[in-house]
Amino acid sequence: MTPQLAEIEQLFQTILTEADTEDTEVLMHLLQGIRDKQTGIHRRYINAALHMTGSFYPDHSIVRIPITPVIHNTIKLPHGGILATIADAAMGGLASRAVEEGKNVVTTNLNINYIATTTNKELVAKGYFINKGRSMLVMECVIEDEIGKKLATATATFFVIKRRQ
Amino acid sequence: MTPQLAEIEQLFQTILTEADTEDTEVLMHLLQGIRDKQTGIHRRYINAALHMTGSFYPDHSIVRIPITPVIHNTIKLPHGGILATIADAAMGGLASRAVEEGKNVVTTNLNINYIATTTNKELVAKGYFINKGRSMLVMECVIEDEIGKKLATATATFFVIKRRQ
Amino acid sequence: MTPQLAEIEQLFQTILTEADTEDTEVLMHLLQGIRDKQTGIHRRYINAALHMTGSFYPDHSIVRIPITPVIHNTIKLPHGGILATIADAAMGGLASRAVEEGKNVVTTNLNINYIATTTNKELVAKGYFINKGRSMLVMECVIEDEIGKKLATATATFFVIKRRQ
Amino acid sequence: MTPQLAEIEQLFQTILTEADTEDTEVLMHLLQGIRDKQTGIHRRYINAALHMTGSFYPDHSIVRIPITPVIHNTIKLPHGGILATIADAAMGGLASRAVEEGKNVVTTNLNINYIATTTNKELVAKGYFINKGRSMLVMECVIEDEIGKKLATATATFFVIKRRQ
Repeated sequence: MTPQLAEIEQLFQTILTEADTEDTEVLMHLLQGIRDKQTGIHRRYINAALHMTGSFYPDHSIVRIPITPVIHNTIKLPHGGILATIADAAMGGLASRAVEEGKNVVTTNLNINYIATTTNKELVAKGYFINKGRSMLVMECVIEDEIGKKLATATATFFVIKRRQ
Repeated sequence: MTPQLAEIEQLFQTILTEADTEDTEVLMHLLQGIRDKQTGIHRRYINAALHMTGSFYPDHSIVRIPITPVIHNTIKLPHGGILATIADAAMGGLASRAVEEGKNVVTTNLNINYIATTTNKELVAKGYFINKGRSMLVMECVIEDEIGKKLATATATFFVIKRRQ
Repeated sequence: MTPQLAEIEQLFQTILTEADTEDTEVLMHLLQGIRDKQTGIHRRYINAALHMTGSFYPDHSIVRIPITPVIHNTIKLPHGGILATIADAAMGGLASRAVEEGKNVVTTNLNINYIATTTNKELVAKGYFINKGRSMLVMECVIEDEIGKKLATATATFFVIKRRQ
Repeated sequence: MTPQLAEIEQLFQTILTEADTEDTEVLMHLLQGIRDKQTGIHRRYINAALHMTGSFYPDHSIVRIPITPVIHNTIKLPHGGILATIADAAMGGLASRAVEEGKNVVTTNLNINYIATTTNKELVAKGYFINKGRSMLVMECVIEDEIGKKLATATATFFVIKRRQ
């Protein structure tokens, strides 16, 4: 075992020894995320860590993130930044699939209105096209929880660029 | 050892066995985050996982997140949602410290303009007041990397509420 | 005739003498606007000057402004500020009718995405509710021309205040 | 005198006969605006009608609109749409002067936060660059009255296009 692996092993055991229920839940959640990245279920650690899943259709997208302590703010509600993250994913993922081969999109503006919060179980973001321009796409998004309570709405503009290799 | 702990232990060993350099780096980063939450250095798992640190002064704030694979998007650049997260933290953290005892703030609108990206080491968000109203605060934020390259600017409005216990 | 009236009379005659077709059209348009304010068809000079008309229903609003040289920018297309004006009117007019007796609303944030421009005859803005909160309303708006070409979309937040007398 | 001119003359006399002090002030203001367009002081009727004046420097702009009943909303305060108009003018005018010969800019996103209102005499908008990109400019703007009371702040993105003839 390399020194670094020994250090990780040690850190892991320390955490486990002192873990309360919430720590254990978060640890399990994040480890499963890393494993999902390792096995190719996710391409990005951030999406893997958030257990974010997306479905992309021709005219809309649905992206989900389970609400766990991992994304809680100090008052145990979903963090506003995570709502921005899921909105960007729902709109940007849909936009990037709508541009021609060899092109990609970058977010240029994101505007989000926060409406309510939730103590339920899942964030569900639905992305739609407002306008598909040749050089710019305008998108919108509604974020609800799993029982349809509206949490936020967002709009964003995406600039079309050549895809980087 | 409880069944759940045995399961976590097993998952951890599987990850470790198959970990490449990046997996190891991310694993170390997230475990250190959880440990920092456990020891009270962080109050939220999300901030802990991002290794986000903030300094709050009377008229501005500085919040930092190291750029690691944890926050990379598919093209190995900082994820737009994480820029929104650090912006919200820099502005909201400053706003919440400016309201009177027993009050808190909630983000009502966040608008972010993305300018450039970076392959450097750290996100640095500086938050400022535009206007401190009695019932609403308007804030602005500049996000740069550690060598001062401007990545994004944001404005946000925060509504003043009674602090929840 | 008072000196001021004599001065207005003189100015009017000078304009008329040198007026080209467009000047004449604009002069007629603005004078009709002032007359509409005078006879009570409009309550505000700005709306009268723009010949802005609005219909407000329980769940949406429709506001119209004819496209004339009065609202042209330098390239003879509707001015972006006028699109913001009609958006604010469509959303704010609807929001103000949705709050209880003795209350009114003020715009706190307006975000507008410009999509296309038009050489057609009319701006038509449709306003909708996104969320009716007790202290804040979130609204959205689509601006098209009279044949349904989408020109811009907007969202806005309105803060509920006591109505000023 | 053509039938149309006779009609304008008649309308003008009717307005004048029934004009109260405010009507007279607005009439004078708008006629002076049309005259300024006629003599080339203004290139657009909308700017002329608002008596909007702008100064453009290498790194900032200052645009002014006098506060008269022409721009009042129903509670005799400057209309939110006019604040958006002056913000767009201050930022867009500066942006258009910063792009190379043969290019121009169009507003793609405008976001405005309203802070306070005023009973003073003038709207003063100052525009600044946040970022001058090759294909997109990000701008910001502060709107105050003539004694420096902050009324609103805005950001906008402008897309660079080929100048239309």
